[in-house]
Amino acid sequence: MNIYVDGMGGDNSPGEIVQGCIMAAKSFNRKICIIGEEQKLYAELDKQEYVKELIEVIPSLEVITNNEDPTIAIRRKKQSSLVIGLQRIKADRRSILISAGSTGALLAGGTLIVGRIKGIQRPALTVMLPTKKGFSLLLDAGANVDCKASYLQQFAIMSSIYVEELLGVTKPRVGLINIGSEEKKGNELTKETYGLLKETDVNFVGNIEARDIPEGNADILVCDGFTGNIILKLMEGLGLFIFDALKKSIISSTRAKIGGLLLKPALKIFKKRFDYTEVGGAPLLGVNGGIIKAHGNSDRKAIYNAIKQGIEFQEKNIIDKISNKIVKVQE
Amino acid sequence: MNIYVDGMGGDNSPGEIVQGCIMAAKSFNRKICIIGEEQKLYAELDKQEYVKELIEVIPSLEVITNNEDPTIAIRRKKQSSLVIGLQRIKADRRSILISAGSTGALLAGGTLIVGRIKGIQRPALTVMLPTKKGFSLLLDAGANVDCKASYLQQFAIMSSIYVEELLGVTKPRVGLINIGSEEKKGNELTKETYGLLKETDVNFVGNIEARDIPEGNADILVCDGFTGNIILKLMEGLGLFIFDALKKSIISSTRAKIGGLLLKPALKIFKKRFDYTEVGGAPLLGVNGGIIKAHGNSDRKAIYNAIKQGIEFQEKNIIDKISNKIVKVQE
Repeated sequence: MNIYVDGMGGDNSPGEIVQGCIMAAKSFNRKICIIGEEQKLYAELDKQEYVKELIEVIPSLEVITNNEDPTIAIRRKKQSSLVIGLQRIKADRRSILISAGSTGALLAGGTLIVGRIKGIQRPALTVMLPTKKGFSLLLDAGANVDCKASYLQQFAIMSSIYVEELLGVTKPRVGLINIGSEEKKGNELTKETYGLLKETDVNFVGNIEARDIPEGNADILVCDGFTGNIILKLMEGLGLFIFDALKKSIISSTRAKIGGLLLKPALKIFKKRFDYTEVGGAPLLGVNGGIIKAHGNSDRKAIYNAIKQGIEFQEKNIIDKISNKIVKVQE
Repeated sequence: MNIYVDGMGGDNSPGEIVQGCIMAAKSFNRKICIIGEEQKLYAELDKQEYVKELIEVIPSLEVITNNEDPTIAIRRKKQSSLVIGLQRIKADRRSILISAGSTGALLAGGTLIVGRIKGIQRPALTVMLPTKKGFSLLLDAGANVDCKASYLQQFAIMSSIYVEELLGVTKPRVGLINIGSEEKKGNELTKETYGLLKETDVNFVGNIEARDIPEGNADILVCDGFTGNIILKLMEGLGLFIFDALKKSIISSTRAKIGGLLLKPALKIFKKRFDYTEVGGAPLLGVNGGIIKAHGNSDRKAIYNAIKQGIEFQEKNIIDKISNKIVKVQE
């Protein structure tokens, strides 16, 4: 298994990416290949102490940014860190790629270059949402804006395998994101999906209303990519909004300032619960290779955790397990 | 203009509803008709001081709850406070009805009993969302789970009139809820809607991503009822989740408890920004009568504000203005 990391993706590249790779290489005693502009990567590496044998630099000449059309960028920028990484994992299905770069390009490249697992209609982007009880895995978080019920059924099957194997949850509970708890509630897509999921060999627990997402009553939350993206982005935006408003309240008076100071350690623990760096990344499920998307904001710790996740993803043979299951369902 | 209030709807009925009506009757010097079970309403009224001439009790025998199928309930429970209220406003388009009861039943009854404004394809449920700059009006918040682009176009037209007339915003900015800011982003519905809104006589400012909703960069947020309901419910659930987590942080240590105590006044102001009682309610736009939906949790202040809103809705002839505009658009 080769471990490839996109050294040029994300807000904190290449510095934090390189440091995350050094941490992971040392901790897991595995060689990590960082793809990126040689000069920049070595400039970062030279600042650190690391075991030379465990870090390989794979040179790339271009970078795909968030502002480009993902499909065009994937087709044109053959020398970009992302395209090189995707081609590597296409050549060896046992290897993994971690990137904190453009989600759209990773999705487009995952399908165009790496391809889907046989039998999978659409790959899905997953994301971990914080809840009262820990985390729930949401999918699709934005790969497929228009979905059929059969896609959502496959999302439920794939994610059940992933969550059981990687997160150690026995028979993970699958919830369908909907606007009411009763079976007949929802739009055409959710009503049809409900019927399909009832007949599928997953632990389907019914509809989950958006207001109950934070309760954590399902390990997996299934929805179309438009809805999933709305949920993901709204949680981010609202979290920032509330923390911002809270900060403003704290600096509003001397009394409040002292209160805020006393509360600081407790608020730190509070904020930690919303910390994506603890989670690292989330896989693109359904592509025929190990692709882990790290948060665009990833620091070294997030990259370290994403690499850890990628290694486990491959060690547990998630792709083979999904592939076998899908073949069985279709028989 | 007659003002009807559903005395039996909502979590705090009839006590808080009756008190909200007494406050509004006195403040606006208008007669208010409360519909409900006579004995219960008089029991509440007898506890208060009020001008007898300004409060009329209209007897009803049944209540529609949140747990019933809305359409069946509207058809069967002819003697319910809600159905009686809807029949009153059907008989006199100048009157208004305020209810904190079942949203589903209000929607079903609005269409089945009161009917749509001529030319309007679907009525929409509106809701006010708190933002950094105040509030944005979101519609559809759940009346129509499957929408056509032409419905969303009409939502934009109707709400532009409402927000300009009632909230005093000149040329209110209309945003389309979407998963990217560029024109070509989104699902089939949002792409088609984008094209329509560009050609419509409203102040269309383009796509608004869910993470930017709290920024308040649009006065109106247009989307289908499935997406709108997800947004509304997630905001509620996440708000509660964060406040709850914050409370737990505050009681986690003595130090934090003292901090929390000092912060209390500031936190109160902070929480007030998320207070729906300040807003009161939101109209069901597109029905041929003034229907204001108050929050299910409404207290007296919320009911008072919802009544105020209803009076203005009728005084400003919103229905006629929507009707005239829709006729013009169709010509």
